[in-house]
Amino acid sequence: MKTIEHLGIAVKDLNKAVQQYEKLLDSICYKRESVESEKVDTAFFKMGGSKLELLAATEESSVIAGFIAKKGEGMHHVAFEVEDIVAEIGRLKAEGFTMVSDEPKSGADNKLVAFVHPKNSTGMLIELCQERKTD
Amino acid sequence: MKTIEHLGIAVKDLNKAVQQYEKLLDSICYKRESVESEKVDTAFFKMGGSKLELLAATEESSVIAGFIAKKGEGMHHVAFEVEDIVAEIGRLKAEGFTMVSDEPKSGADNKLVAFVHPKNSTGMLIELCQERKTD
Repeated sequence: MKTIEHLGIAVKDLNKAVQQYEKLLDSICYKRESVESEKVDTAFFKMGGSKLELLAATEESSVIAGFIAKKGEGMHHVAFEVEDIVAEIGRLKAEGFTMVSDEPKSGADNKLVAFVHPKNSTGMLIELCQERKTD
Repeated sequence: MKTIEHLGIAVKDLNKAVQQYEKLLDSICYKRESVESEKVDTAFFKMGGSKLELLAATEESSVIAGFIAKKGEGMHHVAFEVEDIVAEIGRLKAEGFTMVSDEPKSGADNKLVAFVHPKNSTGMLIELCQERKTD
């Protein structure tokens, strides 16, 4: 875990949030992507070697809709780039951390992702992500 | 605003959180610093070109104690590096953002800092920070 790959920010209205962040960051949203399995639409900004990912729910049953209902808009997760996500999941479990899922799954932005449960990380939802290799 | 300078994470017990994050990040806390004006003790981790800053209140009247009482432990703010903090404050105000304070002040880690009010940034507390030049 060496770099902050991205920050995931839960927003209600993606178009409105993109406009706000373009002004805030003085930067243009360079990509939008829907992740149907997570029921979210996403929008990305580059910040040096990291990214900001805005996430808006497409259905009420999306985890992002649940998050906003409970906590309001704001920081949802922090993603760290890892070279070997399976090895990193193993290392964290050996250190006593709980994974939301023990197996990596497909995320936005051509990544394999896995989440560390926030109960052992001071309330922070941590995402591990590894660039998906093309065969 | 080009890079994520650091993430500020509110924690209850700094020693316990440092131990957790050393395991989580597989990295050693490289610096601790007290910021008396903010009534916080801080601990830093390097993550590529960015940092994680753990913040624990030293008094009940600290904003970090108030934050944890209201929202629990977790992400408190995101700091973006700027070259000219006064110019950036001016740019953001012209774009319609509200600053918590219009004047930069001294923060941890030899920085001048200023905060953008979260009401225009989807609940995110954004810190601008500029390396303080030594005379």
